[in-house]
Amino acid sequence: MKNINQKIVTQSDIDGKLIVVEGIDGSGKSTQIHLLDKWLSYKGINVFKTEWNSSEMVKEITSKGKKKGQLTPTTFSLLHATDFADRYERHILPLLRAGYFVLADRYVFTAFARDVVRGCNPSWVRKVYNFAIKPHFTFYFRVPVDIAVDRILVGRPKLKYYEAGMDLNLSNDEYESYRIFQGRIIEQYDTMVETEGFTVIDGTLDIEEQQKMVRNKIMAILSSSKYKQMNIKQKK
Amino acid sequence: MKNINQKIVTQSDIDGKLIVVEGIDGSGKSTQIHLLDKWLSYKGINVFKTEWNSSEMVKEITSKGKKKGQLTPTTFSLLHATDFADRYERHILPLLRAGYFVLADRYVFTAFARDVVRGCNPSWVRKVYNFAIKPHFTFYFRVPVDIAVDRILVGRPKLKYYEAGMDLNLSNDEYESYRIFQGRIIEQYDTMVETEGFTVIDGTLDIEEQQKMVRNKIMAILSSSKYKQMNIKQKK
Repeated sequence: MKNINQKIVTQSDIDGKLIVVEGIDGSGKSTQIHLLDKWLSYKGINVFKTEWNSSEMVKEITSKGKKKGQLTPTTFSLLHATDFADRYERHILPLLRAGYFVLADRYVFTAFARDVVRGCNPSWVRKVYNFAIKPHFTFYFRVPVDIAVDRILVGRPKLKYYEAGMDLNLSNDEYESYRIFQGRIIEQYDTMVETEGFTVIDGTLDIEEQQKMVRNKIMAILSSSKYKQMNIKQKK
Repeated sequence: MKNINQKIVTQSDIDGKLIVVEGIDGSGKSTQIHLLDKWLSYKGINVFKTEWNSSEMVKEITSKGKKKGQLTPTTFSLLHATDFADRYERHILPLLRAGYFVLADRYVFTAFARDVVRGCNPSWVRKVYNFAIKPHFTFYFRVPVDIAVDRILVGRPKLKYYEAGMDLNLSNDEYESYRIFQGRIIEQYDTMVETEGFTVIDGTLDIEEQQKMVRNKIMAILSSSKYKQMNIKQKK
Protein backbone atom coordinates (compact mmCIF):
# COMPACT_ATOMS: atom_id res chain seq x y z
CA MET A 1 0.00 0.00 0.00
CA LYS A 2 1.26 3.40 -0.87
CA ASN A 3 1.65 5.65 2.09
CA ILE A 4 -0.83 8.28 0.94
CA ASN A 5 -2.67 9.56 3.94
CA GLN A 6 -6.18 10.56 3.14
CA LYS A 7 -6.46 14.28 3.41
CA ILE A 8 -8.80 16.60 1.63
CA VAL A 9 -6.67 18.38 -0.97
CA THR A 10 -7.75 21.82 -2.07
CA GLN A 11 -6.91 23.84 -5.17
CA SER A 12 -4.36 25.86 -3.24
CA ASP A 13 -2.36 22.67 -2.56
CA ILE A 14 -1.70 21.99 -6.21
CA ASP A 15 0.03 23.72 -9.11
CA GLY A 16 -1.99 22.08 -11.87
CA LYS A 17 -5.51 22.67 -13.10
CA LEU A 18 -8.38 20.26 -13.27
CA ILE A 19 -10.77 20.65 -16.19
CA VAL A 20 -13.81 18.41 -16.31
CA VAL A 21 -16.36 17.71 -19.02
CA GLU A 22 -19.73 16.24 -18.14
CA GLY A 23 -22.87 15.40 -20.08
CA ILE A 24 -24.78 12.35 -21.21
CA ASP A 25 -23.52 10.03 -23.91
CA GLY A 26 -23.92 11.77 -27.25
CA SER A 27 -23.57 15.24 -25.76
CA GLY A 28 -20.32 15.76 -27.64
CA LYS A 29 -18.19 16.21 -24.52
CA SER A 30 -15.50 13.73 -25.56
CA THR A 31 -14.96 15.53 -28.86
CA GLN A 32 -14.63 18.82 -27.01
CA ILE A 33 -12.09 17.50 -24.50
CA HIS A 34 -10.14 15.93 -27.34
CA LEU A 35 -9.91 19.28 -29.10
CA LEU A 36 -8.98 21.02 -25.86
CA ASP A 37 -6.24 18.46 -25.26
CA LYS A 38 -4.73 19.14 -28.71
CA TRP A 39 -4.92 22.87 -28.24
CA LEU A 40 -3.30 22.87 -24.80
CA SER A 41 -0.62 20.43 -25.88
CA TYR A 42 0.14 22.61 -28.88
CA LYS A 43 0.63 25.50 -26.50
CA GLY A 44 3.30 23.51 -24.73
CA ILE A 45 1.28 22.74 -21.66
CA ASN A 46 1.63 19.40 -19.93
CA VAL A 47 -1.72 17.73 -20.32
CA PHE A 48 -3.00 14.46 -18.92
CA LYS A 49 -6.35 13.11 -20.07
CA THR A 50 -8.28 10.67 -17.95
CA GLU A 51 -11.56 8.84 -18.47
CA TRP A 52 -14.21 7.50 -16.17
CA ASN A 53 -14.04 3.80 -15.51
CA SER A 54 -10.61 3.14 -16.85
CA SER A 55 -8.78 1.72 -13.85
CA GLU A 56 -7.43 -1.74 -14.54
CA MET A 57 -7.70 -2.66 -10.90
CA VAL A 58 -11.44 -2.85 -10.66
CA LYS A 59 -12.43 -3.10 -14.32
CA GLU A 60 -12.50 -6.87 -14.15
CA ILE A 61 -14.57 -7.15 -11.01
CA THR A 62 -17.00 -4.47 -12.15
CA SER A 63 -17.71 -6.20 -15.41
CA LYS A 64 -17.96 -9.53 -13.61
CA GLY A 65 -20.45 -8.15 -11.13
CA LYS A 66 -22.39 -6.46 -13.90
CA LYS A 67 -22.60 -9.64 -15.88
CA LYS A 68 -23.95 -11.59 -12.98
CA GLY A 69 -26.49 -8.88 -12.24
CA GLN A 70 -25.51 -9.13 -8.62
CA LEU A 71 -24.84 -5.49 -7.96
CA THR A 72 -27.12 -3.34 -5.86
CA PRO A 73 -27.10 0.46 -6.22
CA THR A 74 -24.78 0.66 -3.21
CA THR A 75 -22.25 -1.90 -4.41
CA PHE A 76 -22.44 -0.48 -7.95
CA SER A 77 -21.71 2.94 -6.54
CA LEU A 78 -18.91 1.81 -4.23
CA LEU A 79 -17.20 -0.18 -6.98
CA HIS A 80 -17.13 2.87 -9.21
CA ALA A 81 -15.92 4.95 -6.29
CA THR A 82 -13.08 2.50 -5.73
CA ASP A 83 -12.21 2.67 -9.40
CA PHE A 84 -12.25 6.44 -9.29
CA ALA A 85 -10.23 6.63 -6.08
CA ASP A 86 -7.59 4.41 -7.64
CA ARG A 87 -7.25 6.65 -10.68
CA TYR A 88 -7.52 9.76 -8.57
CA GLU A 89 -4.71 8.89 -6.18
CA ARG A 90 -2.40 7.24 -8.68
CA HIS A 91 -2.81 9.57 -11.64
CA ILE A 92 -5.00 12.63 -11.20
CA LEU A 93 -3.69 13.98 -7.91
CA PRO A 94 0.04 13.34 -8.51
CA LEU A 95 -0.18 15.03 -11.91
CA LEU A 96 -2.09 17.97 -10.52
CA ARG A 97 0.61 18.34 -7.89
CA ALA A 98 3.19 18.21 -10.67
CA GLY A 99 1.52 21.14 -12.38
CA TYR A 100 -0.30 19.33 -15.16
CA PHE A 101 -3.56 20.32 -16.76
CA VAL A 102 -5.65 17.25 -16.03
CA LEU A 103 -8.57 16.84 -18.41
CA ALA A 104 -11.23 14.52 -17.03
CA ASP A 105 -13.83 13.02 -19.35
CA ARG A 106 -16.43 12.60 -16.60
CA TYR A 107 -15.65 13.16 -12.92
CA VAL A 108 -17.52 12.73 -9.64
CA PHE A 109 -20.62 14.40 -11.10
CA THR A 110 -21.19 11.36 -13.29
CA ALA A 111 -21.48 9.30 -10.11
CA PHE A 112 -23.68 11.91 -8.49
CA ALA A 113 -26.06 11.72 -11.46
CA ARG A 114 -26.06 7.99 -12.23
CA ASP A 115 -25.97 6.61 -8.70
CA VAL A 116 -28.83 8.84 -7.62
CA VAL A 117 -30.91 7.82 -10.64
CA ARG A 118 -30.23 4.21 -9.58
CA GLY A 119 -31.55 4.88 -6.09
CA CYS A 120 -28.59 5.96 -3.96
CA ASN A 121 -28.99 8.71 -1.42
CA PRO A 122 -27.67 11.97 -2.99
CA SER A 123 -25.91 13.16 0.13
CA TRP A 124 -24.33 9.75 0.77
CA VAL A 125 -22.84 9.62 -2.75
CA ARG A 126 -21.37 13.09 -2.30
CA LYS A 127 -19.82 12.11 1.01
CA VAL A 128 -18.24 8.98 -0.42
CA TYR A 129 -16.48 11.13 -3.03
CA ASN A 130 -15.59 14.02 -0.75
CA PHE A 131 -11.87 13.20 -0.96
CA ALA A 132 -11.84 14.44 -4.55
CA ILE A 133 -10.63 17.96 -5.34
CA LYS A 134 -13.07 20.46 -6.81
CA PRO A 135 -12.36 21.10 -10.50
CA HIS A 136 -11.22 24.51 -11.71
CA PHE A 137 -13.73 24.26 -14.53
CA THR A 138 -16.57 21.88 -15.16
CA PHE A 139 -18.09 22.18 -18.61
CA TYR A 140 -21.51 20.68 -18.85
CA PHE A 141 -22.60 19.92 -22.39
CA ARG A 142 -26.33 20.21 -22.33
CA VAL A 143 -28.36 18.68 -25.13
CA PRO A 144 -32.00 17.68 -25.35
CA VAL A 145 -32.22 13.98 -24.61
CA ASP A 146 -33.60 13.11 -28.05
CA ILE A 147 -30.70 14.71 -29.89
CA ALA A 148 -28.10 12.95 -27.75
CA VAL A 149 -29.87 9.64 -27.89
CA ASP A 150 -30.31 9.87 -31.66
CA ARG A 151 -26.58 10.49 -32.04
CA ILE A 152 -25.84 7.35 -30.01
CA LEU A 153 -28.51 5.19 -31.57
CA VAL A 154 -27.59 5.86 -35.20
CA GLY A 155 -27.47 2.37 -36.68
CA ARG A 156 -29.23 0.98 -33.60
CA PRO A 157 -26.19 -0.46 -31.85
CA LYS A 158 -26.64 -3.21 -29.30
CA LEU A 159 -26.97 -1.50 -25.93
CA LYS A 160 -25.60 -3.19 -22.84
CA TYR A 161 -28.09 -4.11 -20.15
CA TYR A 162 -26.93 -1.58 -17.58
CA GLU A 163 -26.04 1.01 -20.18
CA ALA A 164 -29.67 0.98 -21.27
CA GLY A 165 -30.77 1.18 -17.63
CA MET A 166 -32.73 -2.03 -18.05
CA ASP A 167 -32.19 -2.75 -14.34
CA LEU A 168 -34.44 0.18 -13.51
CA ASN A 169 -37.49 -1.43 -15.11
CA LEU A 170 -38.31 1.69 -17.07
CA SER A 171 -39.43 -0.11 -20.20
CA ASN A 172 -39.19 -3.54 -21.78
CA ASP A 173 -37.77 -1.94 -24.91
CA GLU A 174 -34.09 -1.24 -24.40
CA TYR A 175 -34.06 1.83 -26.64
CA GLU A 176 -37.01 3.29 -24.85
CA SER A 177 -35.43 2.43 -21.50
CA TYR A 178 -32.18 4.09 -22.58
CA ARG A 179 -34.04 7.25 -23.54
CA ILE A 180 -35.85 7.49 -20.20
CA PHE A 181 -32.68 6.65 -18.27
CA GLN A 182 -30.67 9.36 -20.07
CA GLY A 183 -33.47 11.83 -19.46
CA ARG A 184 -33.27 11.20 -15.75
CA ILE A 185 -29.52 11.69 -15.77
CA ILE A 186 -30.03 15.05 -17.47
CA GLU A 187 -32.40 16.01 -14.66
CA GLN A 188 -29.67 15.23 -12.14
CA TYR A 189 -27.06 17.20 -14.08
CA ASP A 190 -29.44 20.14 -14.26
CA THR A 191 -29.78 20.23 -10.48
CA MET A 192 -25.99 20.51 -10.23
CA VAL A 193 -25.52 23.50 -12.53
CA GLU A 194 -25.86 25.99 -9.71
CA THR A 195 -24.63 23.96 -6.76
CA GLU A 196 -21.50 22.67 -8.47
CA GLY A 197 -20.80 25.72 -10.58
CA PHE A 198 -21.02 24.11 -14.00
CA THR A 199 -20.25 26.16 -17.08
CA VAL A 200 -23.10 25.17 -19.35
CA ILE A 201 -22.31 24.78 -23.03
CA ASP A 202 -25.10 24.34 -25.56
CA GLY A 203 -24.21 20.98 -27.06
CA THR A 204 -26.39 21.56 -30.10
CA LEU A 205 -24.09 24.29 -31.42
CA ASP A 206 -21.37 23.68 -34.01
CA ILE A 207 -18.35 21.84 -32.69
CA GLU A 208 -16.08 24.83 -33.45
CA GLU A 209 -18.40 27.25 -31.74
CA GLN A 210 -18.51 25.15 -28.56
CA GLN A 211 -14.76 24.74 -28.57
CA LYS A 212 -14.30 28.48 -28.85
CA MET A 213 -16.39 28.98 -25.73
CA VAL A 214 -14.39 26.36 -23.86
CA ARG A 215 -11.07 27.89 -24.91
CA ASN A 216 -12.21 31.36 -23.93
CA LYS A 217 -12.84 30.13 -20.41
CA ILE A 218 -9.51 28.33 -20.20
CA MET A 219 -7.71 31.37 -21.58
CA ALA A 220 -8.30 33.13 -18.28
CA ILE A 221 -6.13 30.59 -16.47
CA LEU A 222 -3.50 30.53 -19.18
CA SER A 223 -2.89 34.25 -19.02
CA SER A 224 -1.72 33.88 -15.44
CA SER A 225 2.05 34.29 -15.36
CA LYS A 226 2.88 30.73 -14.33
CA TYR A 227 1.42 29.19 -17.45
CA LYS A 228 2.81 31.88 -19.72
CA GLN A 229 6.26 30.71 -18.75
CA MET A 230 5.32 27.20 -19.74
CA ASN A 231 4.16 28.39 -23.11
CA ILE A 232 6.89 26.53 -24.94
CA LYS A 233 6.35 23.19 -26.57
CA GLN A 234 7.51 20.55 -24.12
CA LYS A 235 7.85 16.83 -24.38
CA LYS A 236 4.75 15.12 -23.01
CA MET B 1 -28.80 -5.17 -10.52
CA LYS B 2 -31.22 -5.83 -7.77
CA ASN B 3 -33.75 -3.15 -7.27
CA ILE B 4 -32.77 -2.30 -3.72
CA ASN B 5 -33.09 1.39 -3.24
CA GLN B 6 -30.59 2.77 -0.82
CA LYS B 7 -32.41 3.85 2.27
CA ILE B 8 -31.14 4.04 5.80
CA VAL B 9 -32.80 1.13 7.58
CA THR B 10 -33.35 1.44 11.30
CA GLN B 11 -33.95 -1.18 13.96
CA SER B 12 -37.68 -0.50 13.89
CA ASP B 13 -37.80 -1.58 10.22
CA ILE B 14 -36.66 -5.12 10.96
CA ASP B 15 -37.85 -8.08 12.96
CA GLY B 16 -34.44 -9.66 13.50
CA LYS B 17 -31.59 -8.77 15.79
CA LEU B 18 -28.03 -7.89 14.87
CA ILE B 19 -25.34 -9.02 17.31
CA VAL B 20 -21.78 -7.98 16.59
CA VAL B 21 -18.47 -9.06 18.08
CA GLU B 22 -15.40 -6.88 17.71
CA GLY B 23 -11.84 -7.03 18.96
CA ILE B 24 -8.36 -7.58 17.61
CA ASP B 25 -7.17 -10.96 16.34
CA GLY B 26 -6.57 -13.18 19.33
CA SER B 27 -9.18 -11.45 21.47
CA GLY B 28 -11.30 -14.60 21.51
CA LYS B 29 -14.30 -13.00 19.80
CA SER B 30 -14.74 -15.75 17.19
CA THR B 31 -14.90 -18.42 19.89
CA GLN B 32 -17.53 -16.41 21.72
CA ILE B 33 -19.71 -15.89 18.66
CA HIS B 34 -19.38 -19.57 17.82
CA LEU B 35 -20.68 -20.50 21.27
CA LEU B 36 -23.44 -17.93 21.01
CA ASP B 37 -24.47 -19.34 17.64
CA LYS B 38 -24.75 -22.86 19.09
CA TRP B 39 -26.71 -21.66 22.08
CA LEU B 40 -29.20 -19.63 20.05
CA SER B 41 -29.63 -22.38 17.49
CA TYR B 42 -30.28 -24.87 20.29
CA LYS B 43 -32.99 -22.54 21.53
CA GLY B 44 -34.65 -22.86 18.15
CA ILE B 45 -33.83 -19.39 16.96
CA ASN B 46 -32.99 -18.77 13.33
CA VAL B 47 -29.36 -17.70 13.32
CA PHE B 48 -27.18 -16.49 10.46
CA LYS B 49 -23.47 -16.00 11.05
CA THR B 50 -21.45 -13.69 8.83
CA GLU B 51 -17.78 -12.80 8.73
CA TRP B 52 -15.84 -9.77 7.64
CA ASN B 53 -14.32 -10.00 4.20
CA SER B 54 -16.10 -13.06 2.99
CA SER B 55 -17.86 -11.80 -0.12
CA GLU B 56 -16.83 -13.72 -3.22
CA MET B 57 -17.45 -10.70 -5.39
CA VAL B 58 -14.53 -8.60 -4.29
CA LYS B 59 -12.33 -11.18 -2.60
CA GLU B 60 -10.37 -11.74 -5.78
CA ILE B 61 -9.74 -8.11 -6.55
CA THR B 62 -8.84 -7.28 -2.97
CA SER B 63 -6.23 -9.99 -2.81
CA LYS B 64 -4.96 -9.01 -6.25
CA GLY B 65 -4.63 -5.39 -5.25
CA LYS B 66 -3.02 -6.36 -1.97
CA LYS B 67 -0.47 -8.53 -3.72
CA LYS B 68 0.52 -5.81 -6.08
CA GLY B 69 0.82 -3.33 -3.22
CA GLN B 70 -1.15 -0.89 -5.31
CA LEU B 71 -3.80 0.03 -2.81
CA THR B 72 -3.90 3.38 -1.08
CA PRO B 73 -5.76 3.80 2.23
CA THR B 74 -8.75 5.17 0.29
CA THR B 75 -8.95 2.36 -2.25
CA PHE B 76 -8.26 -0.22 0.47
CA SER B 77 -11.12 1.25 2.49
CA LEU B 78 -13.54 1.49 -0.44
CA LEU B 79 -12.85 -2.07 -1.56
CA HIS B 80 -13.67 -3.36 1.89
CA ALA B 81 -16.75 -1.14 1.96
CA THR B 82 -17.88 -2.63 -1.35
CA ASP B 83 -17.34 -6.10 0.01
CA PHE B 84 -19.28 -5.26 3.13
CA ALA B 85 -22.13 -3.59 1.21
CA ASP B 86 -22.44 -6.68 -0.95
CA ARG B 87 -22.77 -8.95 2.07
CA TYR B 88 -24.94 -6.45 3.88
CA GLU B 89 -27.52 -6.08 1.13
CA ARG B 90 -27.56 -9.67 -0.04
CA HIS B 91 -27.41 -11.47 3.29
CA ILE B 92 -27.44 -9.39 6.46
CA LEU B 93 -30.34 -7.06 5.71
CA PRO B 94 -32.70 -9.61 4.08
CA LEU B 95 -32.18 -12.02 6.98
CA LEU B 96 -32.71 -9.28 9.55
CA ARG B 97 -35.94 -8.42 7.77
CA ALA B 98 -36.88 -12.08 7.88
CA GLY B 99 -36.49 -12.07 11.65
CA TYR B 100 -33.14 -13.83 11.97
CA PHE B 101 -30.55 -13.28 14.65
CA VAL B 102 -27.61 -12.19 12.55
CA LEU B 103 -24.27 -12.75 14.27
CA ALA B 104 -21.51 -10.67 12.73
CA ASP B 105 -17.88 -11.56 13.39
CA ARG B 106 -16.62 -8.00 12.85
CA TYR B 107 -18.83 -5.24 11.48
CA VAL B 108 -18.32 -1.61 10.43
CA PHE B 109 -16.27 -0.90 13.55
CA THR B 110 -13.47 -3.02 12.15
CA ALA B 111 -13.32 -0.63 9.21
CA PHE B 112 -13.54 2.39 11.49
CA ALA B 113 -10.53 1.10 13.45
CA ARG B 114 -8.30 -0.29 10.66
CA ASP B 115 -8.93 2.34 8.00
CA VAL B 116 -8.26 5.16 10.43
CA VAL B 117 -5.02 3.52 11.62
CA ARG B 118 -4.06 3.35 7.92
CA GLY B 119 -4.64 7.07 7.48
CA CYS B 120 -8.27 7.54 6.42
CA ASN B 121 -10.29 10.38 7.79
CA PRO B 122 -12.45 9.04 10.67
CA SER B 123 -15.56 10.97 9.71
CA TRP B 124 -15.23 10.01 6.03
CA VAL B 125 -15.07 6.29 6.86
CA ARG B 126 -18.16 6.59 9.02
CA LYS B 127 -20.04 8.35 6.25
CA VAL B 128 -19.14 5.70 3.69
CA TYR B 129 -20.68 3.05 5.94
CA ASN B 130 -23.69 5.06 7.07
CA PHE B 131 -26.08 2.81 5.12
CA ALA B 132 -25.47 0.04 7.67
CA ILE B 133 -27.94 -0.55 10.46
CA LYS B 134 -26.83 -0.03 14.06
CA PRO B 135 -26.39 -3.36 15.87
CA HIS B 136 -28.61 -4.29 18.81
CA PHE B 137 -25.52 -5.41 20.71
CA THR B 138 -21.85 -4.93 20.00
CA PHE B 139 -19.59 -6.97 22.26
CA TYR B 140 -16.07 -5.68 22.34
CA PHE B 141 -13.57 -8.23 23.60
CA ARG B 142 -10.86 -6.19 25.19
CA VAL B 143 -7.48 -7.79 25.82
CA PRO B 144 -4.06 -6.28 26.41
CA VAL B 145 -2.23 -6.26 23.09
CA ASP B 146 0.53 -8.59 24.33
CA ILE B 147 -1.89 -11.31 25.37
CA ALA B 148 -3.77 -11.21 22.06
CA VAL B 149 -0.61 -11.07 20.02
CA ASP B 150 0.97 -13.93 21.95
CA ARG B 151 -2.13 -16.05 21.26
CA ILE B 152 -1.79 -15.35 17.55
CA LEU B 153 1.96 -15.69 17.37
CA VAL B 154 2.20 -19.08 19.11
CA GLY B 155 4.43 -21.05 16.79
CA ARG B 156 5.42 -17.85 14.98
CA PRO B 157 3.18 -18.24 11.96
CA LYS B 158 4.05 -16.43 8.78
CA LEU B 159 2.23 -13.10 8.86
CA LYS B 160 0.96 -11.56 5.65
CA TYR B 161 2.42 -8.21 4.67
CA TYR B 162 -0.73 -6.16 5.27
CA GLU B 163 -1.86 -8.29 8.19
CA ALA B 164 1.37 -7.32 9.95
CA GLY B 165 0.81 -3.68 9.00
CA MET B 166 4.18 -3.64 7.20
CA ASP B 167 2.80 -0.97 4.85
CA LEU B 168 2.70 1.46 7.77
CA ASN B 169 6.48 1.38 8.22
CA LEU B 170 6.19 0.77 11.92
CA SER B 171 9.12 -1.62 12.15
CA ASN B 172 11.29 -3.74 9.89
CA ASP B 173 10.48 -6.76 12.01
CA GLU B 174 7.07 -8.10 11.03
CA TYR B 175 6.24 -9.39 14.52
CA GLU B 176 7.15 -6.07 16.07
CA SER B 177 5.17 -4.27 13.36
CA TYR B 178 2.17 -6.51 14.01
CA ARG B 179 2.31 -5.74 17.71
CA ILE B 180 2.39 -1.99 17.17
CA PHE B 181 -0.32 -2.18 14.50
CA GLN B 182 -2.66 -4.18 16.77
CA GLY B 183 -1.96 -1.75 19.61
CA ARG B 184 -3.13 1.12 17.43
CA ILE B 185 -6.28 -0.74 16.49
CA ILE B 186 -7.03 -1.24 20.19
CA GLU B 187 -6.68 2.52 20.67
CA GLN B 188 -9.29 3.06 17.97
CA TYR B 189 -11.66 0.48 19.48
CA ASP B 190 -11.28 2.13 22.86
CA THR B 191 -12.41 5.47 21.47
CA MET B 192 -15.59 3.79 20.23
CA VAL B 193 -16.69 2.20 23.50
CA GLU B 194 -18.73 5.22 24.53
CA THR B 195 -19.69 6.65 21.15
CA GLU B 196 -20.82 3.34 19.64
CA GLY B 197 -22.21 1.85 22.84
CA PHE B 198 -19.97 -1.23 22.99
CA THR B 199 -20.54 -3.78 25.71
CA VAL B 200 -16.99 -4.41 26.88
CA ILE B 201 -16.08 -7.97 27.82
CA ASP B 202 -12.79 -8.72 29.52
CA GLY B 203 -11.19 -11.08 27.01
CA THR B 204 -8.72 -12.39 29.56
CA LEU B 205 -11.43 -14.14 31.57
CA ASP B 206 -12.29 -17.82 31.15
CA ILE B 207 -14.16 -18.65 27.98
CA GLU B 208 -17.18 -19.86 29.95
CA GLU B 209 -17.27 -16.77 32.09
CA GLN B 210 -17.23 -14.47 29.06
CA GLN B 211 -19.92 -16.50 27.34
CA LYS B 212 -22.11 -16.25 30.42
CA MET B 213 -21.88 -12.44 30.28
CA VAL B 214 -22.74 -12.44 26.59
CA ARG B 215 -25.74 -14.73 27.09
CA ASN B 216 -27.01 -12.66 30.00
CA LYS B 217 -27.14 -9.64 27.74
CA ILE B 218 -28.86 -11.52 24.93
CA MET B 219 -31.34 -13.01 27.38
CA ALA B 220 -32.99 -9.62 27.70
CA ILE B 221 -33.99 -9.71 24.03
CA LEU B 222 -35.03 -13.34 24.16
CA SER B 223 -37.46 -12.80 26.99
CA SER B 224 -39.47 -10.47 24.79
CA SER B 225 -42.65 -12.24 23.72
CA LYS B 226 -41.81 -12.53 20.04
CA TYR B 227 -38.80 -14.70 20.61
CA LYS B 228 -40.46 -16.72 23.34
CA GLN B 229 -42.90 -17.96 20.72
CA MET B 230 -40.01 -19.03 18.53
CA ASN B 231 -38.51 -20.98 21.37
CA ILE B 232 -39.03 -24.26 19.62
CA LYS B 233 -36.33 -26.01 17.69
CA GLN B 234 -36.70 -25.10 14.04
CA LYS B 235 -34.94 -26.23 10.94
CA LYS B 236 -32.18 -23.81 10.02
